[in-house]
Amino acid sequence: MKPYCERTKEELLQERQNLEAKFEDAKGKGLKLDISRGKPSAAQLEISRGLLDAVNSESDLKCENGLDCSNYGMMDGIPEAKKLFADLLEVSPENVIVYGNSSLNIMYDTVSRSYTHGVMGSTPWCKLDRVKFLCPVPGYDRHFAVTERFGIELINIPMKSDGPDMDLVEEYVNQDPAVKGIWCVPKYENPMGITYSEETVKRFAALKPAARDFRIFWDNAYALHHLYEDQQDALPEILSECEKAGNPDMVYEFCSTSKISFPGAGVAALISSRANLEEARKQLAIQTIGHDKLNQLRHVRYFKDADGVREHMKQHALFLRPKFETVLDTLEKELGGLKIGSWIRPRGGYFISFDALPGCAKAIVAKAKEAGLVLTGAGATYPYKKDPQDSNIRIAPSFPTPEELALATEVFVLSVKLVSIDKILGNME
Amino acid sequence: MKPYCERTKEELLQERQNLEAKFEDAKGKGLKLDISRGKPSAAQLEISRGLLDAVNSESDLKCENGLDCSNYGMMDGIPEAKKLFADLLEVSPENVIVYGNSSLNIMYDTVSRSYTHGVMGSTPWCKLDRVKFLCPVPGYDRHFAVTERFGIELINIPMKSDGPDMDLVEEYVNQDPAVKGIWCVPKYENPMGITYSEETVKRFAALKPAARDFRIFWDNAYALHHLYEDQQDALPEILSECEKAGNPDMVYEFCSTSKISFPGAGVAALISSRANLEEARKQLAIQTIGHDKLNQLRHVRYFKDADGVREHMKQHALFLRPKFETVLDTLEKELGGLKIGSWIRPRGGYFISFDALPGCAKAIVAKAKEAGLVLTGAGATYPYKKDPQDSNIRIAPSFPTPEELALATEVFVLSVKLVSIDKILGNME
Repeated sequence: MKPYCERTKEELLQERQNLEAKFEDAKGKGLKLDISRGKPSAAQLEISRGLLDAVNSESDLKCENGLDCSNYGMMDGIPEAKKLFADLLEVSPENVIVYGNSSLNIMYDTVSRSYTHGVMGSTPWCKLDRVKFLCPVPGYDRHFAVTERFGIELINIPMKSDGPDMDLVEEYVNQDPAVKGIWCVPKYENPMGITYSEETVKRFAALKPAARDFRIFWDNAYALHHLYEDQQDALPEILSECEKAGNPDMVYEFCSTSKISFPGAGVAALISSRANLEEARKQLAIQTIGHDKLNQLRHVRYFKDADGVREHMKQHALFLRPKFETVLDTLEKELGGLKIGSWIRPRGGYFISFDALPGCAKAIVAKAKEAGLVLTGAGATYPYKKDPQDSNIRIAPSFPTPEELALATEVFVLSVKLVSIDKILGNME
Repeated sequence: MKPYCERTKEELLQERQNLEAKFEDAKGKGLKLDISRGKPSAAQLEISRGLLDAVNSESDLKCENGLDCSNYGMMDGIPEAKKLFADLLEVSPENVIVYGNSSLNIMYDTVSRSYTHGVMGSTPWCKLDRVKFLCPVPGYDRHFAVTERFGIELINIPMKSDGPDMDLVEEYVNQDPAVKGIWCVPKYENPMGITYSEETVKRFAALKPAARDFRIFWDNAYALHHLYEDQQDALPEILSECEKAGNPDMVYEFCSTSKISFPGAGVAALISSRANLEEARKQLAIQTIGHDKLNQLRHVRYFKDADGVREHMKQHALFLRPKFETVLDTLEKELGGLKIGSWIRPRGGYFISFDALPGCAKAIVAKAKEAGLVLTGAGATYPYKKDPQDSNIRIAPSFPTPEELALATEVFVLSVKLVSIDKILGNME
């Protein structure tokens, strides 16, 4: 297809007329579609139903150390749940604390604890004039929101094809003692689906932070969330890399089963050095009598072991793969060659990231809404919801049915085309 | 029995000799007993097992508004869980946010939020030179620990038979703007089992705090935890009392099903004014994607309604009542008239509070340990673990079997007697 930018005004006006007719058609359907959040579909959740029987009234409620999961105790998790997370993330159970249902909550609490109590004896961040966090962009809105809530200054770090721009990361981290952390989704990251390369991971591990309370917030949310059995991204294990590089305490790794079992009813974990976990436990011992151990037991009894989880993930992929392909194939077919947008074909995760012509993202989201399609708000993938290029849009294909998703993608590409034509025509004037 | 303090030295020495023989007997049994924490017994927990089948793989996972409890959403709880808590605590569902498994966690987060972000626009407590909390004593160690962690100054308020010394509370709250809160367990309180009188509640509601960000932390942990069907304490509903007194936003009420269903696998709630909940929701929206709604659904499906919970509590009482009576009857029989200790006969809750002769509590706890009995650490019921009288000991009769508890109480009274004799003899010299 001939790129829009190479077409004449007349050609563009003609194209616009055709597209508008199609768009009006779509609008007339009274659609109510939503590809804004990374939610599994109702059908996809059915595959985890067996979990609900894994602990029942006939079950032995003791975990492997003989303690009763239905009573108080074992504040930092039951042994077999620690082992399951350890096996999945390639660490030792000693590096795991099992929490409640939400890894985001662990991240929030970790930032909040650093703010109120510092990190291993450092000055509490609330007592500092400036605290900065690095934010690879585009990235996950909820990460940015956590640090924004604590008045932390958020600094954009552009993503490259193999991870964040490490030259820039090194410059900030190694030189500025106000830089206390960086948000990372290292595998099938949100929203682009990129996995950090081995070199990127090693450069992370080899950072020489100016601040001794600098920590990498390594949100390994999609560690096991492959779309293809035969094409899987691999990510080096970060704890051992940091240890090898002489930075054993530099990373907090977070994960959960929210997109393995049930969103909101899964189990989350913090994975870090013994010293970091010791500090987390000091908070835990004051904060709670412990997390839901019956739900931990439920998960371990159901999945049995790491292989059990990996097998389960193949079933999730059966739902997700065709949805990703629907969107990606449509983008390719409808937008390929037009030079009005770019995207990456991820091999896992929950998102597709679309970069429109600069200055078009908000207009595309608004246009799509006219036809009943809800997209993630433009700018959401940037700190303070400010995309400096107004270009990035996150697409979450998981929730709609395949039929709805096909319609949604159709509305999306129409919206992209119409807004892009207007932009190009505007530039001609 | 003749009070020890009225006996001659010779009589006391003789008594000591008899007691020591019995104590050596007990020691010889190699006991391993624990009456230190308010944990339900294994047998008691069996009564809640049906809960584990209430949501299973065949269940409809939609709650009454048609939304799917197994997916993201409904951050502040499912409607029927809000209603259940509302009915139990005599408020409206609009006054309820349902959280995860731990009310202590809600309390911690509430203090932490006030520390980092203030209360409805007030200066964050971390920016203030002094923040004070009132602590009715003896009280709950974990409350005190939460505020201690944030460097808040803890002030002892003596408990009277109908609640905290309200003259003192009024003086502090109404005059000192550094006083930001008070920890209350208003019903069958920990450790004495006292329920606040109607007058006390009304005086709480009518406080005129010098600090506009003063809040009552009303931990209604034992609201439904009666020992007797025909002798139940009644507590006026605090939200409506505060509203009537012109202080609609002055109270946060906390509760959970930890001692209704399963400790650690229950559901907790925050009950407060709409404005306070609005502020809590702002934090929640950043902190988590929501709590475990399947566990909320499990509880509602199992208990059905408030009456279902109340019926269930009668089964708990069947286990607890004889245990309380074992301890109380033994105290009466063995210590009555000796004037070496006092206690109250509670009608609910999980604890019995024992006041030894001043300066004896630590020694009694140590003595009991010699014979294999673990008691709550002396001083634990006071802020900073400092009981100024070294007098109070908390007894938690719920966990041991009846046979173990009988032995434990025997060791306890022997320890009390021996330590008291030594104390009195020491005073004679």
